[in-house]
Amino acid sequence: MHALIVFAHPEPKSFNGALKDAAIAALEGAGHTVALSDLYAMEFKAVADGGDFPQRTDAARLDYAGEQTAAHEGNSVAPDIAAEQAKLSAADLVIFQFPLWWYSVPAMLKGWLERVLSAGFAYGAGRLFDQAGLSGTRALLSFTTNGQESSYTEDGWHGPISDTLTPLHQGLRFVGFEPLKPFIAWNVHRCAAEERTAMIAAVTDRMAGIAQETPIPYPPMAAYDRRGLLIDPGD
Amino acid sequence: MHALIVFAHPEPKSFNGALKDAAIAALEGAGHTVALSDLYAMEFKAVADGGDFPQRTDAARLDYAGEQTAAHEGNSVAPDIAAEQAKLSAADLVIFQFPLWWYSVPAMLKGWLERVLSAGFAYGAGRLFDQAGLSGTRALLSFTTNGQESSYTEDGWHGPISDTLTPLHQGLRFVGFEPLKPFIAWNVHRCAAEERTAMIAAVTDRMAGIAQETPIPYPPMAAYDRRGLLIDPGD
Repeated sequence: MHALIVFAHPEPKSFNGALKDAAIAALEGAGHTVALSDLYAMEFKAVADGGDFPQRTDAARLDYAGEQTAAHEGNSVAPDIAAEQAKLSAADLVIFQFPLWWYSVPAMLKGWLERVLSAGFAYGAGRLFDQAGLSGTRALLSFTTNGQESSYTEDGWHGPISDTLTPLHQGLRFVGFEPLKPFIAWNVHRCAAEERTAMIAAVTDRMAGIAQETPIPYPPMAAYDRRGLLIDPGD
Repeated sequence: MHALIVFAHPEPKSFNGALKDAAIAALEGAGHTVALSDLYAMEFKAVADGGDFPQRTDAARLDYAGEQTAAHEGNSVAPDIAAEQAKLSAADLVIFQFPLWWYSVPAMLKGWLERVLSAGFAYGAGRLFDQAGLSGTRALLSFTTNGQESSYTEDGWHGPISDTLTPLHQGLRFVGFEPLKPFIAWNVHRCAAEERTAMIAAVTDRMAGIAQETPIPYPPMAAYDRRGLLIDPGD
């Protein structure tokens, strides 16, 4: 298996950095190969704008997705985006490693999603879900929280972690990724050192067997009608 | 009432731009005052990193929230962040106007949340929810979608729009904002021109009466114990 780790944390010495390093070591130890996109170290451009299109088709009015499609079809994708897309095309598994900020990914990683998972490359008319560009690629959200696990529950003040993850998994699913169960390192600022050691051991164990995991099941594109509604919603 | 509109779209001539202009006109027509943060026009820095702290307290290892707190307490907040915080402090209502991208706000706006709603200014130990920095400030998510309303339902392929909004409202609530019911302009790319005209009329109507609206109810901080769990979860 070939894995791509997309790492988004401004501090290399962070616990996110340690989790990323442990994942690389464990994947390589299991015989897999690993590529890394360290977005902060790369000073990745996080903002989607007209500057992303070396050959704009409409200079008067920016239709971002329309320009993405034209750039993909015209083979004029900006070099930094094309490089990430090439890494994605080579990957069987993509691991997103990040701190949970504002119940989502950091802006740095959000911008990567917007720019790299482009119309044309990652999705298009009739090319969603299992028919989309990343179909068959597994994806893992691996993240840290700044709160205890108990506070990310129905009665917790952060609400259920599943609520936080729903839009992120939905976005991954939209372009064909097959999301795996997330890896969550809880409360990393205030937990004991031995808990952090246990979390490093847990990510190491997880990576050793990740090729055998079954992704979270979702309906395929054929389950929906042209309006985007389930044809047979069942109960 | 004094409103702040935080606008995040790369194209001024977009429908998001038209909704923003209509909101400004309607608010001013109703006797309110309006400030604008046009993030793309401002070339707002969207990435949270060590460069946000002119007086870093720990140059060896970046603790972003820790540096935010130190900057707030030491009155050394970066000028672009301090300017946005001053606008927030003056506002009774904050309107976020944006296109829904990847089931969330654009990276540009996500970065604004990360950098501006800082530890120290917006929240801190014992200062969450109704006790937090933005307590008493109303917030409105006003956004466009690139899909029909029917596809953002339980049986729709995007899932319920309420699932998409939960983490965003939770983040606003965390720092004291009182979220109003969102304003959603559906399917703006493919709808008929008269539908867009009707949406402009709808945002105009909405703004005329927005001062009389009741925010979405959430439990106050006192409803939770020290572990972040509801003391009396009820049924």
